[in-house]
Amino acid sequence: MEMHIRSLTKPDGRQLRLYSRHPIEHVENAPSPFPDPLHANPHMRWHPLRGEWITYAAYRQGRTFLPPPEYNPLAVTRTPDNPTELPPGDWDVAVFDNRFPSLSLEAHHPPETIVPTMPSTGKCEVVVFTQDPQSALGKLPLAHIELLLQVWAERTLQLGRHPDIQYVLPFENRGAEVGVTLHHPHGQIYAYPVVPPVPGRMMQIAAEHYSQHGRGPLEMLIEQELACDKRLIYRGEHAVAFVPVCARYPYEVWVAPIKAVPSFVELDEEQRADLARALKTVLMKYEALWNRPFPYLMAWYQAPTDEQWHPEAHLHAEFYPPYRTPDKLKYLAGTELAAGLFAMDVLPEDKALELQNVTVQLEEPAHA
Amino acid sequence: MEMHIRSLTKPDGRQLRLYSRHPIEHVENAPSPFPDPLHANPHMRWHPLRGEWITYAAYRQGRTFLPPPEYNPLAVTRTPDNPTELPPGDWDVAVFDNRFPSLSLEAHHPPETIVPTMPSTGKCEVVVFTQDPQSALGKLPLAHIELLLQVWAERTLQLGRHPDIQYVLPFENRGAEVGVTLHHPHGQIYAYPVVPPVPGRMMQIAAEHYSQHGRGPLEMLIEQELACDKRLIYRGEHAVAFVPVCARYPYEVWVAPIKAVPSFVELDEEQRADLARALKTVLMKYEALWNRPFPYLMAWYQAPTDEQWHPEAHLHAEFYPPYRTPDKLKYLAGTELAAGLFAMDVLPEDKALELQNVTVQLEEPAHA
Repeated sequence: MEMHIRSLTKPDGRQLRLYSRHPIEHVENAPSPFPDPLHANPHMRWHPLRGEWITYAAYRQGRTFLPPPEYNPLAVTRTPDNPTELPPGDWDVAVFDNRFPSLSLEAHHPPETIVPTMPSTGKCEVVVFTQDPQSALGKLPLAHIELLLQVWAERTLQLGRHPDIQYVLPFENRGAEVGVTLHHPHGQIYAYPVVPPVPGRMMQIAAEHYSQHGRGPLEMLIEQELACDKRLIYRGEHAVAFVPVCARYPYEVWVAPIKAVPSFVELDEEQRADLARALKTVLMKYEALWNRPFPYLMAWYQAPTDEQWHPEAHLHAEFYPPYRTPDKLKYLAGTELAAGLFAMDVLPEDKALELQNVTVQLEEPAHA
Repeated sequence: MEMHIRSLTKPDGRQLRLYSRHPIEHVENAPSPFPDPLHANPHMRWHPLRGEWITYAAYRQGRTFLPPPEYNPLAVTRTPDNPTELPPGDWDVAVFDNRFPSLSLEAHHPPETIVPTMPSTGKCEVVVFTQDPQSALGKLPLAHIELLLQVWAERTLQLGRHPDIQYVLPFENRGAEVGVTLHHPHGQIYAYPVVPPVPGRMMQIAAEHYSQHGRGPLEMLIEQELACDKRLIYRGEHAVAFVPVCARYPYEVWVAPIKAVPSFVELDEEQRADLARALKTVLMKYEALWNRPFPYLMAWYQAPTDEQWHPEAHLHAEFYPPYRTPDKLKYLAGTELAAGLFAMDVLPEDKALELQNVTVQLEEPAHA
């Protein structure tokens, strides 16, 4: 489906991109709460015991901007002397550069330390899902969610083209329980100069699986989850949502196209439409489960943007909700954080049943 | 130094071990809040995308035991009709089997699922640091902390001898912020049937480093941290504590013998005494930093108990405190949990300076 993009530059030099199904005509300029450029210069240090990079952006603590509690930087600007991050106008989804990025294409000259260092090259973008501060990803119309899937594709393609960017991760942290104080519906995109540790291991395992079985492990698992039919949350023609047999969080759910698609970029229209239905179904069930906003971390794994062909990659979202019951959080403690071996006190089958028993109705039938 | 052990069996079949510098003479029997055996049967499932095991102990949610808020199961039993987990008597440190273990030597016949499964063989032990519910690990006398280091050695040796146990991880979750509601000073030991993902990768990296350089990466890093002298928190003859150059948490500190010692078992008396001083110094500084109890996860990494010789292993503790300022928690979100790439908004050098500026006095000089 058609997508229109309007690119603007904020007074402090950051990029703003607006997206809509229709030509964007009523936008004048890109506001910013910050008048001057920041010249972000984050760096990475090598962790010699874990064999991974850590990124440091010390200026982030120096945020002098202390807005009043009712100020919402993701709302559209109402008066020019109180600028937010976004202009009024006929746009549906917006993406702009994070003012305090952990990764920056401007990064240069890392400090010398006793371990290897390098510039934290990359990008941190904020994705505003809608102009409505009271909405939520799961409350948006299916067509709007489809537009967001196209925006993620466009960002993956554009960011991935940069020779220094190896991996693009769209995610949403939702709810005060996961540290989010800004309730305007939004997510983030991190574009990394390396394939990060978790997707790196997943890609390695997927590649071995692919060379052995001719397809990736997720496509095979989805086939088995569909046949087993115990933990499914949504079953469409092209997309599926389920509590995985190996869930690490009590209400963990994965959303994926049924056939392996390496990234958002390669989704066809039908797959994208069904993926939007799967995603919205999960979000509506989460919200209806306890009749209150349901916090989660949602992360979208896809193929690295290293210009290799990745038939082993399989685009999918993983949801990690922090609650194990309506009033009990699952804390990551010794065995999870130190050993990396997750301990669950509930069975995925039982949590899937809870979500299956929540009835929700999409605004159009799954197979129209 | 001498250590006396008294082994007892609780009415529900669980083991209790009491430790002291002196013969334990005034203990009659092992109490339990639970009259009957539980027959724990946890199982593991294979995560085909991450290539790791997840452990499931569904009975853990069925804890019918709801004690009144003032009931402390880790206090010693005062009256036989209100039994706790521990008997009165002349003991200093106690270790007993967790009533609701994620790992059990009784585990058998895992369910069949669409992924490989296996029994969650292993042990989960509770380590009570002292009889005093108002104390804390950092408040105990050095001799008492040394005893605890010996207890961890004894448990590593005993648990590691079991042919099914490949890795022994002592840790402490401290504070409501990391999910602990029981404030009696205590830690835990998880004894795993596999080397878990994080220590597994660390051992692989250490082995490669050892074969290339003739020693492990931590011994080399400690030499560099000592020479650089920017982030040291304690410097003794045999042990050191420092904020690592590659810290992933704002007040992360590592405590280690200076020369590589594979596990608690191989520590000599002098190393153990200095390690106790290093550990206590860190804990006292944490406590004095904001003049209030300082929450953390403390994990002790050591060599696997797989009967191989591990010269590349280097016993050490890593502390992960959840706070980044006195009133702000560091939430693990998208980049940490989904990508595994940690983002820090403070520099390790600055946090080390804060801890260096806290003056504490051990009850005996470090070099007596």
